[in-house]
Amino acid sequence: MLALTKLKAGRGAVLKRVPIPRIAKDELLLKVTRASICGSDLPIYNWNSWAPDRLTLPMTFGHEFCGVVAEMGSATRDFKKGDFVSVESHIYCGLCSQCRNGQRHVCRNLKIIGIDGPGGFAEYARVPARCAWKHKDMSLAGVGSLMEPLGNAVYAALVEDLVGQSALVLGCGPQGLFAIASAKAGGAKPIIAVEITPFRRKLAKKMGADIVLDPRSKGVLEKIRKAAGEKGGVDAVLEMSGAPAAIELGLKAVRSGGRVVAFGIPSKRLQIDWANDIIFKGIRIYGIAGREIFNTWSRMDALLRSKAIRVESVITHRFSLKQFKKGFQVMNAKNKNCGKVVLEIG
Amino acid sequence: MLALTKLKAGRGAVLKRVPIPRIAKDELLLKVTRASICGSDLPIYNWNSWAPDRLTLPMTFGHEFCGVVAEMGSATRDFKKGDFVSVESHIYCGLCSQCRNGQRHVCRNLKIIGIDGPGGFAEYARVPARCAWKHKDMSLAGVGSLMEPLGNAVYAALVEDLVGQSALVLGCGPQGLFAIASAKAGGAKPIIAVEITPFRRKLAKKMGADIVLDPRSKGVLEKIRKAAGEKGGVDAVLEMSGAPAAIELGLKAVRSGGRVVAFGIPSKRLQIDWANDIIFKGIRIYGIAGREIFNTWSRMDALLRSKAIRVESVITHRFSLKQFKKGFQVMNAKNKNCGKVVLEIG
Amino acid sequence: MLALTKLKAGRGAVLKRVPIPRIAKDELLLKVTRASICGSDLPIYNWNSWAPDRLTLPMTFGHEFCGVVAEMGSATRDFKKGDFVSVESHIYCGLCSQCRNGQRHVCRNLKIIGIDGPGGFAEYARVPARCAWKHKDMSLAGVGSLMEPLGNAVYAALVEDLVGQSALVLGCGPQGLFAIASAKAGGAKPIIAVEITPFRRKLAKKMGADIVLDPRSKGVLEKIRKAAGEKGGVDAVLEMSGAPAAIELGLKAVRSGGRVVAFGIPSKRLQIDWANDIIFKGIRIYGIAGREIFNTWSRMDALLRSKAIRVESVITHRFSLKQFKKGFQVMNAKNKNCGKVVLEIG
Amino acid sequence: MLALTKLKAGRGAVLKRVPIPRIAKDELLLKVTRASICGSDLPIYNWNSWAPDRLTLPMTFGHEFCGVVAEMGSATRDFKKGDFVSVESHIYCGLCSQCRNGQRHVCRNLKIIGIDGPGGFAEYARVPARCAWKHKDMSLAGVGSLMEPLGNAVYAALVEDLVGQSALVLGCGPQGLFAIASAKAGGAKPIIAVEITPFRRKLAKKMGADIVLDPRSKGVLEKIRKAAGEKGGVDAVLEMSGAPAAIELGLKAVRSGGRVVAFGIPSKRLQIDWANDIIFKGIRIYGIAGREIFNTWSRMDALLRSKAIRVESVITHRFSLKQFKKGFQVMNAKNKNCGKVVLEIG
Repeated sequence: MLALTKLKAGRGAVLKRVPIPRIAKDELLLKVTRASICGSDLPIYNWNSWAPDRLTLPMTFGHEFCGVVAEMGSATRDFKKGDFVSVESHIYCGLCSQCRNGQRHVCRNLKIIGIDGPGGFAEYARVPARCAWKHKDMSLAGVGSLMEPLGNAVYAALVEDLVGQSALVLGCGPQGLFAIASAKAGGAKPIIAVEITPFRRKLAKKMGADIVLDPRSKGVLEKIRKAAGEKGGVDAVLEMSGAPAAIELGLKAVRSGGRVVAFGIPSKRLQIDWANDIIFKGIRIYGIAGREIFNTWSRMDALLRSKAIRVESVITHRFSLKQFKKGFQVMNAKNKNCGKVVLEIG
Repeated sequence: MLALTKLKAGRGAVLKRVPIPRIAKDELLLKVTRASICGSDLPIYNWNSWAPDRLTLPMTFGHEFCGVVAEMGSATRDFKKGDFVSVESHIYCGLCSQCRNGQRHVCRNLKIIGIDGPGGFAEYARVPARCAWKHKDMSLAGVGSLMEPLGNAVYAALVEDLVGQSALVLGCGPQGLFAIASAKAGGAKPIIAVEITPFRRKLAKKMGADIVLDPRSKGVLEKIRKAAGEKGGVDAVLEMSGAPAAIELGLKAVRSGGRVVAFGIPSKRLQIDWANDIIFKGIRIYGIAGREIFNTWSRMDALLRSKAIRVESVITHRFSLKQFKKGFQVMNAKNKNCGKVVLEIG
Repeated sequence: MLALTKLKAGRGAVLKRVPIPRIAKDELLLKVTRASICGSDLPIYNWNSWAPDRLTLPMTFGHEFCGVVAEMGSATRDFKKGDFVSVESHIYCGLCSQCRNGQRHVCRNLKIIGIDGPGGFAEYARVPARCAWKHKDMSLAGVGSLMEPLGNAVYAALVEDLVGQSALVLGCGPQGLFAIASAKAGGAKPIIAVEITPFRRKLAKKMGADIVLDPRSKGVLEKIRKAAGEKGGVDAVLEMSGAPAAIELGLKAVRSGGRVVAFGIPSKRLQIDWANDIIFKGIRIYGIAGREIFNTWSRMDALLRSKAIRVESVITHRFSLKQFKKGFQVMNAKNKNCGKVVLEIG
Repeated sequence: MLALTKLKAGRGAVLKRVPIPRIAKDELLLKVTRASICGSDLPIYNWNSWAPDRLTLPMTFGHEFCGVVAEMGSATRDFKKGDFVSVESHIYCGLCSQCRNGQRHVCRNLKIIGIDGPGGFAEYARVPARCAWKHKDMSLAGVGSLMEPLGNAVYAALVEDLVGQSALVLGCGPQGLFAIASAKAGGAKPIIAVEITPFRRKLAKKMGADIVLDPRSKGVLEKIRKAAGEKGGVDAVLEMSGAPAAIELGLKAVRSGGRVVAFGIPSKRLQIDWANDIIFKGIRIYGIAGREIFNTWSRMDALLRSKAIRVESVITHRFSLKQFKKGFQVMNAKNKNCGKVVLEIG
């Protein structure tokens, strides 16, 4: 089979013919149909940031994908050939205290598909059966690889009830765009989005943001507060960018008694005003790691199937596996003129 | 009447004979029986930190007190002369969005008794009737001035269910000691307390801490994690000190999927590891401002009356109003050989 | 002023000229602009069911109304002449344990305007200032009298998160219609409505129900379960009718682990299958009395102002105060060819 | 091996030598050490009530047990010979919507060990590995068979926070006694227990009830309300008996805005006052089926290990497997002079 493989240290990756993986008894072999490129695939491709410290090469990467069951390990239940599944990239152990208590997303023995082991930028991939979300039918075939990242946003946006509340989405990359869609499905109003790139500001509007702001324009904080109305700030901040300035903006923009949802990952430690922004305002901060397994998946499935969330317009580029270089080029471009880049594999 | 008054800028205060306050129609006049010295009274007395910027002198200060109703304004309901009340120091407006929605403790128009207006270090004090917690009888007379600070700790400790969970209390000043008592009443086990001062470590033990650690000793983080058991950290961190090192310790010591409760106020901005300590661990942070009005009061009243919480041993010093200097001296002492200092006034 | 007054036992009421009410110091005098007829006004008008046992005549009734502040008692705050307000009909004491703990809607000393004292079917009405919801502007002038009943439905529908969940609304009188609108605003999908009257089934569709069923048709329970999908029943039942058969249907239709929200009031004790329908299915039942004061009001205000909830089409009849008989005739008609009946007063 | 087997319809069972069970690949073979007799084993033994309709004979019954791993199926993970485990009797499928969403206790394909298939009144038993709760050590060896029933009570008592609240436990059989212990560990005060049998009233006191009442004595409802204090009723009713009169008493005794937890199973439909007792009081009712898997187990484990819950005194009788008849005799006795009956097997 063809697999996009990182052979050795350094920028790039090669599309290589390799043997189809052999599965363990608790695994499924998937014929991959779609895979999408995550922002966190860039450090792997570009070989910078955290990637060199974490990956063991050679390795096939890619952790947002879906496919069709081609083979089932002897210890699996509930799957048959031809089942269409999306993949939860977080391999939870199922045995630790966190897993036993409804917090599999922060499993103490977590491994990530495509980072800690082989991934889905390939014609076939093996995944633990417990990480496969079986679809009822093929209706979500076109967006099956988006469920992993969409799940982050659904979890982030709906970690508390949003009906009739104001939401501020910081950063409108794919995760921010998904967060806008999730907040909208959750009944938030108004939804205020902040994004530097004009291309993504347009997408933000399309996804349902009521107000879209450039963070470099004047009086952004005041505009947000005004839009939020009488409460002195927004009810919910969805921080999807990881930029220190955005985190600071979020902490200032949230109302007293509101909440900040932290998803975007800053590259290093940062300074905050713990006293004034957290304590005196009496806010809650939620760190969001992955998606709740499978509460978020069930909810997301319902929202996608009922079309309360529509994510097609987040996909701005589609390539074949052979065109992978174009995909990474688009994602790496400074102008960020893209939403989600999907590789159509099988 | 006698009132401890801050006449002008500079260290100290004077006990002065002044007229008994006249009350507004929505206020009560209280004959003060007990008042306690809060850590936040020290900047006022010492005239440093935030105090010079916030206070308008001359002013009588003191915001932890209780007393007996001596007079009722015409617009008050439900009080009669002789009622014994403890005082909620936070004057909430009752009209803003936060007040209307169960978050009076972060009222947008909040004023604090004894800071933004006259307080309770005096023989009489006036308070809005809506800030008076009427006691059923005199059984809590000895600890009535402690309800304001105890409320912080009850709110902080019980912001989420603690039954059968591990709790780490950082800082064992009066607020930390109250937090230990609250965590114990909430069913936490084990309760691990961290405190520099030997005197306060002894008090921590007395209040119910199972393990008491000196933060300067070796391997504190490892000891905490080991005591917390299989989850890789504590379920709940109660940060009562405001020391940046303690906040850092708390963020490291909390387990994945656990929570950090932020009460202690650092004096300036601080650095944290937003990515590793909040996001990847999927934790929740709660900023605690004051007490829930009056949910916390009701709960605290029940816990005090049923003796699930006993706070007498936190009171290490008692003085008359005339002995106020001794009280501030004890509180200001470097050795911190004190718990709560109570002024017995009437 | 003109007031619709129940002078003595027996059917009907008379429009009478009476003095404008004098207000107490904690009350407002309202110039009533709109009042609507509640289903619970019928026993008063018709003088049957619970009404003869509860009311003291003569009395002006009506408890769904809005108006403009004409005069303020001396102990009121925050109101001025001309303010437009909707009225919370439940006079809570503000002092009991329930009021102190965020449950004013089940105040232990509850009195209801227009039932336990004079109401709003009149040109002027007096109400405690604490029961007046002040509007930001006049934009909700047309629906101001609907907030009281809409609040019931908003509270009932959103007592738990509904995003992406199935909801079954039983009974499509005004409360059921409001429940459909609230469930829709809350992100429920599908919304299944059950109603006997063809006229109201049409309204249910208009308000956003995805599926509308006649309870007398064949296989209703099976149709509901099928519509609800894989979970074996609906996530949330909103029982708005009070009919024993509907309550039974709801308990059968809810999925294991789902919830039943009880709002419609049956006229007498009823039989249920406590073991099979509540325990073995592990469901939650919520009794809904009134609205949360003012959490529900704030949320409702936001939903109405953002047009997430539109209630105009529930109003099927408008009459002047003088035409009150027509209003009661429409409401009393067997065919139930009505939604909400509004009296346009001032 | 010896197994207590129900060979054919009719009263009683026989201790029979049968082959040690062969395990499936996802199962464990346990050498049973302790098993306890559940109230629901009586219909099986006595062959009345629901048992004849549900069981397929011949069958070994018993669903409260613990033991040591003797053999592991090929598809199991995380177990080794000699591990000490308690058994969750509810075989959840792990695949249905309820299982995927944190509600395994109401799995749509639930089977019960010892009822729908072979159980634990035997020297060896086979159980799905996913139903085995692995103990850290042998410290709970004496009470390992009690975790299944204790879990019901822990789940029931702590379904909402109880700290500083009043609790009413109806029925003091083993489940009621466990509920008292759980409520106490959860910080409830006062705990009021109601029970007919003098023997069990004594046990209730021993387990921590503050007030113990005979339901046939005069003024029970008034006594409960008085003990509950100012709120007009108890905060939480834990209905563990299933007696219609107790359910009625609970619905009357709960305060407005309180909650009723339904665990005891009435034998048929019953009448309730849906309007006055549920709606107007604005209460919540929780149906409790089994235990949360494994949230309740984790919490229970912590509470047992920290000795916040001590259940030894609930065990009033211990017999060998050969003495099983004595065990059932004690349980079947009219006088109910027993708590839990444990069979010491291996």
